[in-house]
Amino acid sequence: MGIRLGANRYGKAESRVVRIVRDTPRHEIRDLNVTTLLRGDFEAAHVDGDQAAVLPTDTQKNTAFAYAKQRGVDSAEDYALALGQRLVAATPAATGCWVRVEQYAWDRIPVGGAGHDHAFVRRGSEVRTAEVDVSEAGPTVRSGITDLVVLKSTGSEFKGFLRDEYTTLPDADDRILATSLTASWRHADGDGADWNASYDEVRALLLETFATTYSRALQETLWLMGRAVLEQRPDLVDIAFSAPNKHHHLVDLSAFGVDNPGEVFVAADRPYGLIEATVTRDES
Amino acid sequence: MGIRLGANRYGKAESRVVRIVRDTPRHEIRDLNVTTLLRGDFEAAHVDGDQAAVLPTDTQKNTAFAYAKQRGVDSAEDYALALGQRLVAATPAATGCWVRVEQYAWDRIPVGGAGHDHAFVRRGSEVRTAEVDVSEAGPTVRSGITDLVVLKSTGSEFKGFLRDEYTTLPDADDRILATSLTASWRHADGDGADWNASYDEVRALLLETFATTYSRALQETLWLMGRAVLEQRPDLVDIAFSAPNKHHHLVDLSAFGVDNPGEVFVAADRPYGLIEATVTRDES
Amino acid sequence: MGIRLGANRYGKAESRVVRIVRDTPRHEIRDLNVTTLLRGDFEAAHVDGDQAAVLPTDTQKNTAFAYAKQRGVDSAEDYALALGQRLVAATPAATGCWVRVEQYAWDRIPVGGAGHDHAFVRRGSEVRTAEVDVSEAGPTVRSGITDLVVLKSTGSEFKGFLRDEYTTLPDADDRILATSLTASWRHADGDGADWNASYDEVRALLLETFATTYSRALQETLWLMGRAVLEQRPDLVDIAFSAPNKHHHLVDLSAFGVDNPGEVFVAADRPYGLIEATVTRDES
Amino acid sequence: MGIRLGANRYGKAESRVVRIVRDTPRHEIRDLNVTTLLRGDFEAAHVDGDQAAVLPTDTQKNTAFAYAKQRGVDSAEDYALALGQRLVAATPAATGCWVRVEQYAWDRIPVGGAGHDHAFVRRGSEVRTAEVDVSEAGPTVRSGITDLVVLKSTGSEFKGFLRDEYTTLPDADDRILATSLTASWRHADGDGADWNASYDEVRALLLETFATTYSRALQETLWLMGRAVLEQRPDLVDIAFSAPNKHHHLVDLSAFGVDNPGEVFVAADRPYGLIEATVTRDES
Repeated sequence: MGIRLGANRYGKAESRVVRIVRDTPRHEIRDLNVTTLLRGDFEAAHVDGDQAAVLPTDTQKNTAFAYAKQRGVDSAEDYALALGQRLVAATPAATGCWVRVEQYAWDRIPVGGAGHDHAFVRRGSEVRTAEVDVSEAGPTVRSGITDLVVLKSTGSEFKGFLRDEYTTLPDADDRILATSLTASWRHADGDGADWNASYDEVRALLLETFATTYSRALQETLWLMGRAVLEQRPDLVDIAFSAPNKHHHLVDLSAFGVDNPGEVFVAADRPYGLIEATVTRDES
Repeated sequence: MGIRLGANRYGKAESRVVRIVRDTPRHEIRDLNVTTLLRGDFEAAHVDGDQAAVLPTDTQKNTAFAYAKQRGVDSAEDYALALGQRLVAATPAATGCWVRVEQYAWDRIPVGGAGHDHAFVRRGSEVRTAEVDVSEAGPTVRSGITDLVVLKSTGSEFKGFLRDEYTTLPDADDRILATSLTASWRHADGDGADWNASYDEVRALLLETFATTYSRALQETLWLMGRAVLEQRPDLVDIAFSAPNKHHHLVDLSAFGVDNPGEVFVAADRPYGLIEATVTRDES
Repeated sequence: MGIRLGANRYGKAESRVVRIVRDTPRHEIRDLNVTTLLRGDFEAAHVDGDQAAVLPTDTQKNTAFAYAKQRGVDSAEDYALALGQRLVAATPAATGCWVRVEQYAWDRIPVGGAGHDHAFVRRGSEVRTAEVDVSEAGPTVRSGITDLVVLKSTGSEFKGFLRDEYTTLPDADDRILATSLTASWRHADGDGADWNASYDEVRALLLETFATTYSRALQETLWLMGRAVLEQRPDLVDIAFSAPNKHHHLVDLSAFGVDNPGEVFVAADRPYGLIEATVTRDES
Repeated sequence: MGIRLGANRYGKAESRVVRIVRDTPRHEIRDLNVTTLLRGDFEAAHVDGDQAAVLPTDTQKNTAFAYAKQRGVDSAEDYALALGQRLVAATPAATGCWVRVEQYAWDRIPVGGAGHDHAFVRRGSEVRTAEVDVSEAGPTVRSGITDLVVLKSTGSEFKGFLRDEYTTLPDADDRILATSLTASWRHADGDGADWNASYDEVRALLLETFATTYSRALQETLWLMGRAVLEQRPDLVDIAFSAPNKHHHLVDLSAFGVDNPGEVFVAADRPYGLIEATVTRDES
C-alpha cells in the first residue's frame, strides 16, 4: 500500500484591492479582500517538484488587480465570477477555482445634509461576502454577510430544555439575545442576478426578522430568519447560518442591596454558544 | 544607593458593562468597556506584601457594575466621574484614580421605516472614549473617539518634501488619504457639560473638516480638524490626534497594457505612516 | 415546494479549561480551549421553538470542566473522546458530537539548571489540536498542530512555472521559505493510541523534514513532510496541510548603492500564498 | 487667545525588517518590527502645508532597510541607535528621534541532536524590545521584553486586603498566579553595553525570581523581580512593569458532587487585573 497525494488546492489569499470609480466627480469606492484558490491536476508540483503547470499565486494576485480595472467591480459577485473564469482558462491543469471576495462598506461623509462626493467613513464591522466556485459544471454563487452584530434587549427566552446531572442553568424568561451573524445564501442561477439589490434585500430581511420575532432560542430565530429570506426570494436555494450566542449574563447585585431587573449585564467573551443551521428548499 | 519603589498604579481593566435602560418599552443600551486604575501610597503592598491598603481589583469591578445601576450611565463621562470619585473615597491610601470608558455605538434596527424599540445593530468600528482623572486638584475629563476610519479618494497631495540619499518617494499630486483616527479633547471644566451633545458636535466637525479641506499632508489635515474643533467649542482646551497614514499604493498595471489613472490601489497593512499632533489654545 | 431545516449543529465554543495535576509537588498543567458541537434531530428546537430535546450549551460547558477532574486529561485526545461520548449519551436526540480541543504548551521555568516544580512559561505560538467525532459508526480522531511558524533562509527555489500575460514574477533560485503550518492527521484506530508520544514524533518529523529537504515549491515541501510522517507512522491514515506562504520579499537597495545578496527582506502581511494539500495512503 | 500647534511627531511604524546573516553556512536571523518617530520644528508642515522640512516616512522606512545591511543588526539596541542618529542628522528641523524595535526570537530546528544551519522555528510569543531616544542631550536606551507569559500553580496568595461594601472577594490562600509580562529597563550608559548578554541575564532573572519567590500579591512579585534585576545589574537605572493579572478562577463543581481542591480552573479573558510598577535606584 503506497502513499499518494490527495485533495489539494492553492492560490493567493487576501489581496486588498481598492477600486475607485471616478468617471464623474462623484466617486465610488469598492474596498475588497480577494482570495483565489485553483484546484486540478497539480500532482507534479508536489511529487516531482515540477512547477510547469502551476500559475503562480503572484499571477493570481496580478489578475485580481488588473481585473478590478479591466472588468470593474459592479458587484463582488460579478467580479469574482470574471476572476474565477479567467484563472481556470489561464491554467490548463485547473479543473476549478474558488473565489472569495469580502467587501467593506463605506458611507459618504455627511456635509451640509448631503453625502460628500469623494470623502467616506467606514460603515462598521459587517462585511459583505461573495463566494464563487467555477467548475466544468458551471459556476455556483453564494452571497453572504459576516460580522453583523445584533442584539435584542427583550423578547427572548430559553426554557424547557433537556436536563442532566451537569445542568445548572435555570430557565430564562427574559434575556438578552445577541450574536455576530454569519450568513450565506446560494443563488439558483449562477449569473445574471442583480446581486447588489439582492444583497440589500436579504440583509434588510435578516435584520427585520431578528427584530420583530419572539425568540424561544437562537435556533428558532435563525430558522425564522432563513424562512423569511427563502419565502421572499424565490431565486435562492438555501441559506446557511453560523451564529455565536454572545452571552450577556445578568449581574447579581443583591450583595450590595441593589435590585437588577434586567438592567445590568456582563458581556462575556468566552465561552460562547455556537449555533449552525441551514434552511433550504424542500425538493421532495 | 538603595533600591526603591517608583511610580505605580493598579486596577481592573476591561470590565464589559452593558446597561439596558428599560423604564419604557423603548429601551436604550449603553455598551461599555471600563478600566479603573488607583494610585497613591501602596508601597507596603509591594515591599512588605501587606495588602491592608489595597482595595481589590475585584471590588473595583463590582463597583463598576453596581454604579451602572445606582448612578446610571447618562454619558460615559458622567459615569466615569462617579466611578473614579467613589474609588478614591473608598481607598484611604489612594491619591488619585484614572478611569477609561470605551463606548460601543448601536443603532436601532429599522423596521417599516422606524427604529425598533428593543432591537439593535452595532454601528461600526468607531468607539467613543472618556478618560477621567480624579485627584486632589479636582477631576480632568478627556472625551474622545478611536478607530474612526475615513478615506478621501482625491483632494490630497504630498510633495515638496525634504530629500536625502535614501529618498525614493516621488511627489504625489493626487493620492488617496486614509486614516483610522484616534482623537481626544480636554474639557476646561471637569463637570457640568452636556457630554453627549459635545461629542456629537466634535465628531461631526472632524468628519466635515476631513471631507471639505484640501490636504497637503496628513499633518495639515489634522491641524485643520483640530483648529475647527477649538474654534467651534470654546469649552475645549486642546485636542490630540494619533493618525496612522493607511497607505493605498497605486498599482502599476502597465506591464499588462492597462492604464491606471488613480483607479486601482492596494491597501497596505504595514508599515504605515504615523502622525501625532496636538492642537491647543495659546495661553500666552 | 416547501422550506425545511437542513444540516444543523450546536454547542459551546472555547471553554478555557485549565487542569493542574498536583498529586505530587511536581505539578503538571493542561491548558485547553474546548469546543463541543452536537448534531441529531433538533428540528423542534428550530421549527417549533421547543427545547425539550436540547442539552444546553451551558451544560456542555459544565461537563467539559467536570470531566477535566473526573476523567482527567491524560491527553487532549483521550479527554475529547470521553467528553464527546458523554454528550451523545446524555442527549437522546443526538446522533453525533464533534469535539475540538486546542492545547497550549508550557515549559517549566529553568532554575539552577532544572525545571521548576510549579512555575511555567508559555512555549510559543504553536498549538496542539485534537478533533474527535463521535457517531454511531464509532469515533474518529484527528490529531494536529497549528501556528507552527517555520522559516528556512536558503535551500528554496521557485521556478519553471506557468506564465500568462499577467505574470511578472521572475524565477527565484534562492529565496526564504516561511510558513505558519497547520497540519492534522487521522488515526486508523479511534482509541488506544499513545497520543502524546505520537504527537511528539509527528511534530519532530515535520520540523526535521522541513529543515533537511530542498524545496522546489511549498507544495513539494508539504508532500515530503506528509510522506515522511506516513512512512514513519503506519497507524496514521492521512495528513492534511494548510500552509500560508509567508512571503519575504528581497528589498531592492540598489538606489542607495547597496548590494543585497539575500540579506535584507521585508516580511509581508498580505496577500499571502495559500497551499492546501492532503497526503494519504493509496488504498487501491 | 489664539490656537496653536502643540506637541507633535511623525514617522513610519512597523516596518518588518528581516536580516539574514549568511557570511558562513550557519545563517543567523534578525526578525524585527521597526518604528521611528521624528520630533522638532515641523510647524510649517501642519499650519502652512509646507513639507520642505519633512523627511518622508517612506524615507525613514528605506533607511531602516538600508541600515539593516549597512550597519547590520548586532543587537536591536545598536541598530536602533544607529537608525535614530541617522534620521536626526538627515533632518535639520529634527530635535529628536524615538525608535522602537521589536525582535522576534527564532530557534534552530533540531536535527539529529543539533540545531540546523538555516532552518528555524519561532520561539513563542515573547518579544524583545529596544526603545532608543536620540536628542541633543544624548541617547537613552530602554531594553525590554513583552508578552512573556508565565504562570505558577501554587505559591501565591491574596488576602488581608481592604474591604468596602462592594467587596465580595474572599481571601485566597493558594491560587494560580499568571501574567503576560511587559518589562523595560533603562541603561545608565547610552552606548557600549553588551546588549544581548544583558538581555539574556535580565530575562533569566525575571523568570527565576517569579518561580522561586512566594507571592502575596502580583505587586510584591513585581517588586521582587525588579529588585533582583537592579541588584544584579548595576548598569541599570530602573525597571518598569506592566502586568495583567490573568485570572484563573477555581470552578465550583460541588453541584455535581465533585471536589475541586485547586485542580480545575477557568482561564478568564476579561476583565483582568492590571498592575503597573517601576522599581528604581534611590538617588537620595
